[in-house]
Amino acid sequence: MKQNLRPMRIAVVGATGAVGKEMLPILEARGFPVAQLVPFASARSEGKVVSFRGHAIRCQVLKPGCFQGIDMAFFDASDAISKEWALKAAEAGAWVIDNSATYRMDPDVPLLVPEVNGSLLKKRVAEAKKPKNKLGAKVRILAGPNCTTAQLVMVLKPIDKLASITRIVVSTYQSVSGAGAAAMDELAAQTVGMFNQKKPQPKVLAHQIAFNCIPHIGGFKEGGYTSEEIKVAQESRKILGLPKLKVTCTAVRVPTFSCHAESVNIQTKKKFKIAAVRKALAAFPGVIVQDDPSKNIYPMNQTSEGDLVESATGRDAVYVGRIREDDSVPNGMNLWIVSDNLRKGAALNAVQIGEALLEHL
Amino acid sequence: MKQNLRPMRIAVVGATGAVGKEMLPILEARGFPVAQLVPFASARSEGKVVSFRGHAIRCQVLKPGCFQGIDMAFFDASDAISKEWALKAAEAGAWVIDNSATYRMDPDVPLLVPEVNGSLLKKRVAEAKKPKNKLGAKVRILAGPNCTTAQLVMVLKPIDKLASITRIVVSTYQSVSGAGAAAMDELAAQTVGMFNQKKPQPKVLAHQIAFNCIPHIGGFKEGGYTSEEIKVAQESRKILGLPKLKVTCTAVRVPTFSCHAESVNIQTKKKFKIAAVRKALAAFPGVIVQDDPSKNIYPMNQTSEGDLVESATGRDAVYVGRIREDDSVPNGMNLWIVSDNLRKGAALNAVQIGEALLEHL
Repeated sequence: MKQNLRPMRIAVVGATGAVGKEMLPILEARGFPVAQLVPFASARSEGKVVSFRGHAIRCQVLKPGCFQGIDMAFFDASDAISKEWALKAAEAGAWVIDNSATYRMDPDVPLLVPEVNGSLLKKRVAEAKKPKNKLGAKVRILAGPNCTTAQLVMVLKPIDKLASITRIVVSTYQSVSGAGAAAMDELAAQTVGMFNQKKPQPKVLAHQIAFNCIPHIGGFKEGGYTSEEIKVAQESRKILGLPKLKVTCTAVRVPTFSCHAESVNIQTKKKFKIAAVRKALAAFPGVIVQDDPSKNIYPMNQTSEGDLVESATGRDAVYVGRIREDDSVPNGMNLWIVSDNLRKGAALNAVQIGEALLEHL
Repeated sequence: MKQNLRPMRIAVVGATGAVGKEMLPILEARGFPVAQLVPFASARSEGKVVSFRGHAIRCQVLKPGCFQGIDMAFFDASDAISKEWALKAAEAGAWVIDNSATYRMDPDVPLLVPEVNGSLLKKRVAEAKKPKNKLGAKVRILAGPNCTTAQLVMVLKPIDKLASITRIVVSTYQSVSGAGAAAMDELAAQTVGMFNQKKPQPKVLAHQIAFNCIPHIGGFKEGGYTSEEIKVAQESRKILGLPKLKVTCTAVRVPTFSCHAESVNIQTKKKFKIAAVRKALAAFPGVIVQDDPSKNIYPMNQTSEGDLVESATGRDAVYVGRIREDDSVPNGMNLWIVSDNLRKGAALNAVQIGEALLEHL
């Protein structure tokens, strides 16, 4: 990041949620130029205290005028909150980095994974600096993708550059943290309860999640697909700039606390060598190749003592392994991606958008 | 099943293992004509007692001559045990139904899922009855497939009949019971341990399984595929009688105790309507369609009070849902399969092979 940046007043909306909780230590650890941190939480969490740089800061609730003087606002709350407040924050003069689905597919808003398409920011900032820009305050709204999409496009981008991707088939293994802090509590409570002969009583998720797989994330939409599955297709196309990319996805919740895993089958237009794919992935910023089956090395949510591989949980990278040719189709490959959905999938990606933005302000 | 069958002396090899334990109650519940049950277990489990029709029966160890007088022997043990003992049992005059991988791909042994290709048995029995059959004692060896394959071909068969399948992409979500009783204990112990701040110490599986996904089942072989992934391809082709079927698979262990789930993308030669696929699946014996997303109905390992759907655990059927068109390819569809891997995937399928065999003896 550029040095000597003007310290800024930063708002985090949803500071006590699963993503917000990850964001504060990330802002701190990466030395984001925060002059003042203003955490917002729902009325239910009003007055809750968050910790930043060793200081306890009391959460505020959103109310008219609350974004006055804010330079940059990270939205890590619901679609409804973003719909109501994101434009207001932009109108107050703040740059908004929105992690909800609200603006992702809006043609007037860039959907950003900085390593993949961060170059879009230069033009955006130039537009924003015009005395009369075409979009008004909306020019200051930037969107981050769905967590499943973020880690996916990080792996697809270098492969597309190498061999031009034509179609992907994705099956996901998504942790409960993707459904928020309450879903994490639900998995923990159900698991402990089952060892104590207590019947699980699902409240946050549609069914029991302890020792179960639920093929249902988001709401059901046209054609029998879930909103999550549709997001993966639409957002991948937009971020990669490949409007005709063929994508099909099955999204499944599994009983893990953190990280999303994805089994991805890829077809490309051009021939490739697996060694070249591995090399392209290893060279891409933010991607780590873990791929030595002979040593039981492949990406995982969790690892334990004696493992020769680090786990994805709590880490920044997108991990990829099990990279192998698929001879069931010309120019096919399979691979396995794991990343911490709260970090690259949400909080980290948003902070990286903020950092990339600062380069141009 | 035909009535008034001659009661038989039945051996179960591996009677105290994960599959063997399931088999005894299945033989009992289905009224298999057992005159005498002879359970075999490893030396470690010698003298252990199993229960059958209210009687306690002491397990024996395998030793020369132990299959004398046995009419039918179910092998639910390791590949090594089958390699050493299955042919001996056949030579002693028993029909052998082998659940190991030993004979599955042997061109002289039929690989059977009765609903799919049980018709092969008639010819086999006729051959066995010839005074001088071509295969010798081996004619009495029959194989059951890998658990992941069994449930898969149950769903593929009616779809193939309807529209001619050309390619499938499979991602699995496999429970620890597929790795045996010790792996089930490992998931339980690690899970409880983690809530008590104990570090997991993997012994049976390659890594921690509690709250983790491990993309590694079986051993790694050519091209970076695991033996499990290769089995799914080869065995599916053999059972379906489609030697040119294009198959690619990624096999993943997830932290569930029972049932394997599979996300399957299918391409067919002919056009189809999703309604016709659903109808063909519902009409196929042993398959139950659970597919009403508006009521949160889709197949799952576990269900809980208030759910409008039954779980696959402990049940015989292969459950299929999330059946939907895939418009990323001509004539494509996605679906989600769940079945109890110890039942249709192993013990039940073997007993069904025995029942089908009895029809022809």
